[in-house]
Formats: sequence, structure tokens, C-alpha cells
Amino acid sequence: MFHVKILNKQDIQAVFSMKDAIAADKAALAAYSRGETTIPLRTNIDIPAESGQSLYMPGYLAGEHPALGMKIVSVYPHNIDKGLPSVPATMISLDPATGIVSAILDGTYLTQLRTGAMQGAATDLLARQDARTATLIGTGGQAPAQLEAMLTVRPLRQVYVSDIDTHRAQDFAAAMQHKFGDQFNVTITAVHDLGQAIAASDIITSATTSKVATFSAADVKPGTHINGVGAYTPEMHEIPEELVKRANVVIFDTMDGVLAEAGDMITPLKDGTVTKEHYEGELGAVVDGKLSGRTTDQQITLFKTVGTAATDVYVAEQILQAADQAGRGKEVQF
Amino acid sequence: MFHVKILNKQDIQAVFSMKDAIAADKAALAAYSRGETTIPLRTNIDIPAESGQSLYMPGYLAGEHPALGMKIVSVYPHNIDKGLPSVPATMISLDPATGIVSAILDGTYLTQLRTGAMQGAATDLLARQDARTATLIGTGGQAPAQLEAMLTVRPLRQVYVSDIDTHRAQDFAAAMQHKFGDQFNVTITAVHDLGQAIAASDIITSATTSKVATFSAADVKPGTHINGVGAYTPEMHEIPEELVKRANVVIFDTMDGVLAEAGDMITPLKDGTVTKEHYEGELGAVVDGKLSGRTTDQQITLFKTVGTAATDVYVAEQILQAADQAGRGKEVQF
Repeated sequence: MFHVKILNKQDIQAVFSMKDAIAADKAALAAYSRGETTIPLRTNIDIPAESGQSLYMPGYLAGEHPALGMKIVSVYPHNIDKGLPSVPATMISLDPATGIVSAILDGTYLTQLRTGAMQGAATDLLARQDARTATLIGTGGQAPAQLEAMLTVRPLRQVYVSDIDTHRAQDFAAAMQHKFGDQFNVTITAVHDLGQAIAASDIITSATTSKVATFSAADVKPGTHINGVGAYTPEMHEIPEELVKRANVVIFDTMDGVLAEAGDMITPLKDGTVTKEHYEGELGAVVDGKLSGRTTDQQITLFKTVGTAATDVYVAEQILQAADQAGRGKEVQF
Repeated sequence: MFHVKILNKQDIQAVFSMKDAIAADKAALAAYSRGETTIPLRTNIDIPAESGQSLYMPGYLAGEHPALGMKIVSVYPHNIDKGLPSVPATMISLDPATGIVSAILDGTYLTQLRTGAMQGAATDLLARQDARTATLIGTGGQAPAQLEAMLTVRPLRQVYVSDIDTHRAQDFAAAMQHKFGDQFNVTITAVHDLGQAIAASDIITSATTSKVATFSAADVKPGTHINGVGAYTPEMHEIPEELVKRANVVIFDTMDGVLAEAGDMITPLKDGTVTKEHYEGELGAVVDGKLSGRTTDQQITLFKTVGTAATDVYVAEQILQAADQAGRGKEVQF
């Protein structure tokens, strides 16, 4: 008889904080950069009848705290018409010691958490310690976790939020002020003048699918840390090319992933704006102290992430252990 | 809110018979042969710490009754020492209309069922209608389902069973006589002289991992139908090469799979014993009437299977529909 554990969003929230997720992402990225992970190519199945796709992303993390599993993500645009999520995601965890399926987790929330935490890890390692002001560009599904991650790693007093849809930015700012204002002692406001906000910010996080830069490089002051967390195809560019060049320290979540997928970083290379040596290395190497990251308060640091299944499987395993300790989740006998 | 349904072996047995599985396998193979399935390459992850492997086999079947899912099979030899199965398997089904994970099924039982049913489908389509005597070679984990499949498609009066371990054959025969004797009005006996049993048989099923032929071609009488359901690597050969040549009708579950994996059929080609034209086609084409299969009572027919994920995903979907109708299985809210 085996058991399989089912963890929904509420279960995950009850046992695993953004702070926990940031620590887990750091460990997963360090393992990745040390070559301790096996991340096979994603398998894509087209579902022409639904104009959809079903994607399978297995991964394994060896070492002292092993993790094994697979995220299944489907992209079904017509789900919207049925009142269902258009990108449903489910995480399947296996016990790395036995190869037996051990749990199923809400993959949508896991993705939000580990993606927010990725930026939190980078911001924690690369932003100035005295950072108090930030700007978040893009207020889509990823935005709450991105905001929470920044608030978790620095005692920010002011966060500006911006969106191409001004009303959406205002609604988001109000909702987030309500959610995080007291907890983090922060003021969250929608901006009218993005240039002013950027110029005042120690941290900038852009989380959009824009094909053009979402802010002006000229407004960025020395010492700023920038996160590019959207723009996950070669056609998307949210970070100004000029800023990619100006940045003193450029760090990726994974070299292979970013250079295969992120237009933000591929195009400056193609244009000859930067050479490959300008791209210093991976965040996992910063975690392990093999790369120094920021060395002065005047440097501009830039982090780009496209995500890796290594964080999915490792964060899921850490959530499972926390859920086991807390006795949380539904367990079904097989 | 979604739901995920959990179906264990008892649930599957309660709602889905071998006869149902044979019908489902026929439909899946027909869809495969019509080109309506998408079966990506299997993803293998090595787990060196456990001398293990974790295998991911997604598949999609389009058409009128679509099915989508993935079987996860791990191969962990050391599990035996822990009192756990060394090849644990789990089936994950997705709703093909929404891409949402809908169910988890016992993959070990599903595999036994769909593999037995595969042979049942072939035996039903290729064996003589008046077949009353059969031999089953190999009494391992697959054997009960293989026996049940033969009994399901022909009113057999006598089944001989054989194994390199004579005691195991005797124990198996006794257990199966107890299980199936009354239900199918059949006598199941372990054989002392395999040659005599083969000579008396209208149907022969070999389900072993043998590297040499498990019976003699000379003993096979005209009109016999033979199933090769073991021997799933290029090094394994359970069917006599001479018999492969002598067979009048040679049918595979999938051309690509058998010619890539089955030593039984690869070696005669390499040896020049047969040409590729000797391999007539796929069982799905027989289901659809595009191939005639057996045309006289004197022909020797030979079926070879190595399995396909198309049957996993389609049989799982049919089981799920039966379970929904019967209100069977545990449903967990997400």
C-alpha cells in the first residue's frame, strides 16, 4: 500500500512562506550550478482539437537533499470560455529514494511561489542592503508573488507599481496595500510618472511579456538592482538594451535557459552590444560564493530569469516535508 | 476548484473487465495505426544514488474519444530490500478537453491489464475460432493477465503452463485453476513435456525475458496462433527464429516499437532469415479491416508486442469513464 498526498494552494500557504521558498530556490539554483541536477528537455504535445498544448517538465536534483518530480502545464486558450484557467499546472512529486509517486501539488501556485522566490533570491543576493524603494512593472498573475518576494528580502518603505493599463495598476496597488501594507510597513502606489519612480528606485522588477523596453535606461540611477522576470521568448524584450550594456554585474538563473529563450539577453549579443563575457554567470554560483555578485554600492546589477524545473522539483519537495511535519494535506491510500 | 480522482487496483477491477480492456486496446491500436496518436519519446532520468531510473511516458490520442496522460514508471532494484515494488508505476490522466490533471491510477495494474489485453486483442483477431487448447510459457507477474486474456477471447478447455522453474509452474497452475477454473470451465495444468503441449495447442503465448527460444518451432502445428509478449530488448529472443520464418501472417502492435526493441523480430531481419516484407503490418490495421490477418485455418499466425503508451492513455481514459458512471474511486478537491 502506498499513499499519495494532495496539497492545494491553501495547504501550501499554511506550511510554506515566501521566505522558505527563497531559501529553497537558492539551494536549487546552487545545486543546478554545481551540476547536481538532471533536467531533461521538456516534452510538448500539441492538442490541435483544442488549439492547446500539454507540456511535461520532469527534473531530478541529486545531493544531500534529493528531489524528483515533474510539472505538467497545459496551455488551453479556450479554457477561459469555460471559466477554467487557461494555463492549468500540476506538480507530481516522486520519492527520490523509492521512485514512487508521493504527492500532487497545485502547480499554478507552486509556479507563482518559486518564480517570485527566484527574484527574491536574486534581490537578496544582489541589491544594496540599504534599498528602501522599489518599482514593479506589470501587474499580471505573477505580480503579487513578485511584490511579496521584494518585500521579504529588503525592508522597503515605498513600492511603485506600473502597468500599461493604468486602472489595473491602481486596483493592484490598492489590493496590495491592503494585503501587505501593515505586514511590511510599506506604501504601495500606482505611478503616474514611471520615469520619476525608476529614478527613485533601488530595485526594479519588470514582469511583463512586452516586446519593447518597459522603462528607460537613462532613468536608472547607479546602485540599482534590476530583475527581468517576464520576457521568456526570443521575441520579448522588457529590459532596455542600453541598460544590459550599462549593468556592471549581469547574472542569470541558468545560462543555458536564458541564452536559449530570453530575447532580453539574446538580442544584445546578436547586435554586438555586449559580448558573452559580459554575462558573468549564474545565481547558484553567487549562492555558493564562487561569484561575488555586487562588490560596490554604485554598481548596477541585473538579474534575468526564465525559470528551471530544478526549482519546481526542489521547492515541491521542501513543501512536502513541511506539510508532513505540520500534518497538512489530504492523504489517499493507493 | 478542480477534482482529482484516485483509482487503486480494487477500483479498477470493480469497474473494468479484461473484456473491456481488450476492446479499449483494439480501439487504441486502431487509432495508432491511423496516425491519430502522439507518442513522444520516453524521458529517462538516471538516479545513480539508488542505481535507479525514472521513466516518463506521455501520450495523446485524438479522434472521437480523445485521451491524454502519462505513465510514470520507476526502476529501483533496491526497493525489494525495502519491501517495495522494484518497478512502481503510476498513471496520470489529463482531461483532453481542458488539459487539467483529472486522475491518478495504479499504473502497475493498468500495465498488467493493458498488456494482457493486447495479447487478447491479437488472439481474438488472429487465432482460429475453434481454438480450445493453449500453452502459456512464463509464469511471472504478467502471467495471470495473459492467461485471463486468452480465456476471455476463446472458450479454451485446456491450458498448459510452463516455466523454467517447474515448482513455480505448478504453483501458478494450481492458483489459476482455483481462480479461473469454474469461471471459464477450463483445466489449467503445469506441463512435464512442453513439446507435447505445444503440439496440442491452437494458441501459444510466450511471456518471458529469455535470450533463447522458449519452445521448438518443429512442435508447432499448422493453424496455430503464437503471441510473443515478453522479450522487449534487442538481446531477448523467446520466439524460435525458424518459426518467425514459417509463420504465414506476422503482425505487430506497432511497427516502430517492435523493430526498435524486439530482438525476436530484429535478429531474423539482420540474419537475412526474413525480409521486412514478411512483417505484414500492425494489429490496428487488422482491427480496421485494412489487413485481413488469418485467411485460412491452416495458417500459422504470429503476433509480437512491446507495448505502446497509446494503450496506457486510452485504457486509463476508458477506466475513468467507467469509474465515473459507477461512482467509484476517491475524489479529492484541489
